[in-house]
Amino acid sequence: MNEKADNIIYLDSASTAKPSPEVLDFLAYSLNSYANPDSMHGFGLDAEKQVGNSRNIIASSLNINKTAGDIIFTSSGTEANNLALFGAAEALKNRGNKIITTDIEHPSVYAPMLELEKKGFEVVFLSAKNGRLDLDKFKNSLCEKVILISAMLINNETGGIFESDIKEIIKITESLNLRGNLYIHCDAVQAYGKINIDLNRFKLDMMSASSHKIHGIKGSGALFLRKGRRIIPQIFGGGQENNYRSSTLNTPGIFAFGKAAAEASENLYKNQEYINNLFDYAVLQIKQKCPDVMFNFIDLNQNLSKYIMSLRLPYNIKSEVMQNYLSGRKIYISSGSACSEKRRKSHESNRVLLNSGLNRNEADSTIRISFSKYNTADEIDGFVSALKDGLTVIKN
Amino acid sequence: MNEKADNIIYLDSASTAKPSPEVLDFLAYSLNSYANPDSMHGFGLDAEKQVGNSRNIIASSLNINKTAGDIIFTSSGTEANNLALFGAAEALKNRGNKIITTDIEHPSVYAPMLELEKKGFEVVFLSAKNGRLDLDKFKNSLCEKVILISAMLINNETGGIFESDIKEIIKITESLNLRGNLYIHCDAVQAYGKINIDLNRFKLDMMSASSHKIHGIKGSGALFLRKGRRIIPQIFGGGQENNYRSSTLNTPGIFAFGKAAAEASENLYKNQEYINNLFDYAVLQIKQKCPDVMFNFIDLNQNLSKYIMSLRLPYNIKSEVMQNYLSGRKIYISSGSACSEKRRKSHESNRVLLNSGLNRNEADSTIRISFSKYNTADEIDGFVSALKDGLTVIKN
Repeated sequence: MNEKADNIIYLDSASTAKPSPEVLDFLAYSLNSYANPDSMHGFGLDAEKQVGNSRNIIASSLNINKTAGDIIFTSSGTEANNLALFGAAEALKNRGNKIITTDIEHPSVYAPMLELEKKGFEVVFLSAKNGRLDLDKFKNSLCEKVILISAMLINNETGGIFESDIKEIIKITESLNLRGNLYIHCDAVQAYGKINIDLNRFKLDMMSASSHKIHGIKGSGALFLRKGRRIIPQIFGGGQENNYRSSTLNTPGIFAFGKAAAEASENLYKNQEYINNLFDYAVLQIKQKCPDVMFNFIDLNQNLSKYIMSLRLPYNIKSEVMQNYLSGRKIYISSGSACSEKRRKSHESNRVLLNSGLNRNEADSTIRISFSKYNTADEIDGFVSALKDGLTVIKN
Repeated sequence: MNEKADNIIYLDSASTAKPSPEVLDFLAYSLNSYANPDSMHGFGLDAEKQVGNSRNIIASSLNINKTAGDIIFTSSGTEANNLALFGAAEALKNRGNKIITTDIEHPSVYAPMLELEKKGFEVVFLSAKNGRLDLDKFKNSLCEKVILISAMLINNETGGIFESDIKEIIKITESLNLRGNLYIHCDAVQAYGKINIDLNRFKLDMMSASSHKIHGIKGSGALFLRKGRRIIPQIFGGGQENNYRSSTLNTPGIFAFGKAAAEASENLYKNQEYINNLFDYAVLQIKQKCPDVMFNFIDLNQNLSKYIMSLRLPYNIKSEVMQNYLSGRKIYISSGSACSEKRRKSHESNRVLLNSGLNRNEADSTIRISFSKYNTADEIDGFVSALKDGLTVIKN
């Protein structure tokens, strides 16, 4: 685990994670099987079989098998979310036009919701302040017109885990006999491979995951679609993926996804323990060396993923300034979701952080560091030392 | 060029091509740059720069630069075609509702056209018998209501090249002062990297290409969109690709695409000459050793790509039977487009071949062999010898 590129300290794994060396070895090997899995000759059937292996590994990591539904391979978590939302909304539009989601979703859920509003759907955005969904508003919004609910499992900026709230949402829909009327989708891109997800018990209808967040390679995602649920495809052509997603299958990406999923699944608790220790060590070091830095959310008794740490800089230092300083020392952290930090207008604050309870100044001074199994205590030391230097340099 | 997996003879490169060893070397190297190109730190900017390199290489291979328009990276040629068609139809629907295409398009154009029909668009399918588009019907269909024209550059099953017809279509729209009213899209998935495409002179508005057809890796495609043309995105989220296609960029796929595009572009005429010789050698060998096998389209004075050869088996032998026989000898050919051969119902003949002028029996006995620069004359000998054996075995 020591193959660092040029002694960098990479603390941005929630944005994208370093491909695992074992995944890359497997990828190099599997590239010999380069046929189109849709070809009917033996070489194609070999590739198809390997695709099936990846699908089975992912299903099994979710404690389900083929009878539970489809694992639809997509090009990304973003595409999986889009397929789930547009696909379900189109499939169910004759039943109702109301959709419920939260106001802290990733742009790949949030932006499709705004599109669905334009198309005439009524979208209710639940607040998620202090790490809890507004379930009172949920109950008040729930009715027979609701066809779709989408909420993320772990927030990519705060680390907030919303598992218990989503389970409560499922219970409420069941108690009102509305469960059969609607689909429940969960963006699990930051959760899959990091916390245990048992789809046998956790009765989601759709769930999105991504390979590159768990040390696979970019270009591969998946949507779970429970049996009996039907969505409208968004990409049409050769009819691949049970007709849900046409395109020549991205076999290298899918093979790598399978390998990464197997690794993540086999080492889930070992990795969790490692990350927990790393997180706690980082908290300790920051409190000691940079006592003016504040921890967002941590003290609010919230259920937080320890893969993600949201820090607030003192002295009104803007997150981008610190990000830039650290980058100069080859330490890479985030000033917001990579999917939005570049295109967010300079005067615009981070929607997710504001909606999570921070004020504008707090949001603008927030940096995110996110961990992977490849990070070490030495790297935490390096980061904290640079952070301390940065605070002094930037303040003056 | 001799790294064969288990002495296979792979003659199915129109379905998907073997990744080039140089592309794989480059890929392995470039995977060190694993950051998210949307991250604002230096590691992300490095990745973004490499993405820019790929984009520039592809633009330059089409004899254009950034000022000509966008090169939008997608996950495949299929997605590029879908984005072009749905994106343009949605953008232009207030101008008119008529679309013109051909009846021999790949499923990734044909299926979206059927969807657009369901959405209320009027789609005219031009016939392409004997390798020429029905330009009389085109002229009769053309009017101010037409918002979109889509025709493929090289057909994936017949090898027919439709460049001159498409150029004629452009001329006709210009002569009637309708050119500004509509977008012209071209599916160049089988043409890009194999024939010279000069978008500086060839005034397409949109053009689709795919990486894995030119020895890149699967999971990467591109859509060229000429400056001033606007389409509606189909995947929403972080706003990547100038907002046309949200998703974390598939950097490994894009890096490989750039490398493959550079190789294809630099060796275009050398490869063409090599393939021409190989094609002519195959014709000679087949005529000598298997005189009962017929050549589809070849004798009709059609403009054909020599990367693709469409053969008709004698004695009413079904293509699948021969494909299966050859597969047993590790020789891999196609019985139709991989994107459709598996899901075509057993009693259903190949749409493209029927519409290209074959009757049902002829279509059902047609096999496709398709070449790449990695094929050798020895392999042609091996194929022809096995074909001869197969004819004897299957006939009896």
